[in-house]
Amino acid sequence: MTADTAAVTIREVGPRDGFQNEPETIATDDKVRLVELLARTGLRRLELTSFVRPDVIPQLADGAEVLARADIPETVSVTVLVPNRRGLERALAQRDRIDEVSLFLSASESHNRANVNRSVDESLAGVGATIADARGEGLRTVAVLSTAFGCPYEGAVDPDRVLGICDRLAAAGADEIGLADTTGMANPRQVAELFARAADHVECELTAHFHNTRGQALANVVAALDAGCRSFESSFGELGGCPVPPGATGNVATEDLVSMLHEMGHPTGIDLAKLLDASHAVQQVLGRPLGSHTLVAGPVDWAPARG
Amino acid sequence: MTADTAAVTIREVGPRDGFQNEPETIATDDKVRLVELLARTGLRRLELTSFVRPDVIPQLADGAEVLARADIPETVSVTVLVPNRRGLERALAQRDRIDEVSLFLSASESHNRANVNRSVDESLAGVGATIADARGEGLRTVAVLSTAFGCPYEGAVDPDRVLGICDRLAAAGADEIGLADTTGMANPRQVAELFARAADHVECELTAHFHNTRGQALANVVAALDAGCRSFESSFGELGGCPVPPGATGNVATEDLVSMLHEMGHPTGIDLAKLLDASHAVQQVLGRPLGSHTLVAGPVDWAPARG
Repeated sequence: MTADTAAVTIREVGPRDGFQNEPETIATDDKVRLVELLARTGLRRLELTSFVRPDVIPQLADGAEVLARADIPETVSVTVLVPNRRGLERALAQRDRIDEVSLFLSASESHNRANVNRSVDESLAGVGATIADARGEGLRTVAVLSTAFGCPYEGAVDPDRVLGICDRLAAAGADEIGLADTTGMANPRQVAELFARAADHVECELTAHFHNTRGQALANVVAALDAGCRSFESSFGELGGCPVPPGATGNVATEDLVSMLHEMGHPTGIDLAKLLDASHAVQQVLGRPLGSHTLVAGPVDWAPARG
Repeated sequence: MTADTAAVTIREVGPRDGFQNEPETIATDDKVRLVELLARTGLRRLELTSFVRPDVIPQLADGAEVLARADIPETVSVTVLVPNRRGLERALAQRDRIDEVSLFLSASESHNRANVNRSVDESLAGVGATIADARGEGLRTVAVLSTAFGCPYEGAVDPDRVLGICDRLAAAGADEIGLADTTGMANPRQVAELFARAADHVECELTAHFHNTRGQALANVVAALDAGCRSFESSFGELGGCPVPPGATGNVATEDLVSMLHEMGHPTGIDLAKLLDASHAVQQVLGRPLGSHTLVAGPVDWAPARG
């Protein structure tokens, strides 16, 4: 267990990774309101939407409108996901409203093929070109590597392969690389080993993105923290992942992550009470109980109050 | 992150800590069937019931009958909870069917007073006397210290106080001491510190008992593992805790714990598929979705199958 209490940076990805996985598209007005609630929690990074093809992900077809309408404080670095150059071009129509773009590919061939119908090499070429274009526009770039721990089609993913892809993303100019456990297969030992090796290996910022599919998300966070990782992605209300079957959980809940980090002494800049307000609001919009634990139990109250 | 892959021992406490918290009492036949399913998963320790006053905990009023009827393999060490000498006497009527007794008190005065209407000193005297009697009967003794990390009435609990109580329990002859996060307030840093100090301090076996109230149970397990703890308590299906409000979660789910430990390389002797059968069975009996993650998602399948 690391003894330090360094600050940790969190990118809230619920408005992208969460909203895109909801079977019923959330109304644009609700999206704007929820994004504005999140942007006022004190968080510093917010993935606001994506510029993907509306026929592929209709849930985010209004991404440009949400981006245009949401009132976001200057202190928040706004990320949008762009799958390719065409997505980047659409995002650039609102260049002054975005700070970072995130791009993605999978570490495993089968998952990349299933997701985008390309080889990993083809995706690396496309991501590299889009990174170059984005940097040319002065945007910070985040490359997220899906299935960096396990792949539902191939099983365990070779860490050497993951580090090799990281090298190529860093060489292409990525400012930040996310190692993502897309299908919730990672365990803490594996996380500790990969993050320790990646920290020695990769020059740019490393971010951890865990799913709580088997309840291990916060355990994996602790392992990544121990290995020196100080940047995480999470989703308010534990949104994301696949909503079917009921109970299959998504990204680690931002409020569970923030609660744990604060209890451990790691500041995040986020006001947990305001964050819980945002999560309550999205739960109300969706009309079903969400997977977040702190949303149900409330924050730990250390004050000697109820005796 | 510890590099070793030592075996870990799990005590399943669902039939006691889980069943006693259900608002509707489970039928005796169902209890016997569920306990027998658990006893055939390969687990080595099973808390089968408690001998508490039936007017206080009517859900376990049939404890003696469940103990008498359940067919348990010799390889399973059967624990029953006894709150005091009278409980021990009732348990001794079936001396040949039990191997261990567990006793409990709280580390914080307010919680102990609220729970058993005694001071901690009074409880320590009673627990010590019952330990002596139980050892006189050749039983192994487990003393579980509730609110060892945080108390809902008093806030953080002083680790020096916890270690002082551990000393007195060890001096009274406890073979094993459980440090319990009864209300889900512990965080991994606190767990690492307390278990590291306790390992240096306490001679007898140390067991960790975590609740998943704020989603941190497995993160706390990793911290305890790192500090050398190799004994855990958990509850199939994530039963236990307070079932109201819905979603407020109980003990860490045994199947989530086993899944993580196996993925990390720590053997438990438990067959995860058989354990999931038991959890599915209790979910069917209770007729509501349980909090367990692995019960919904299934075990990690590392085989290159679905491609």
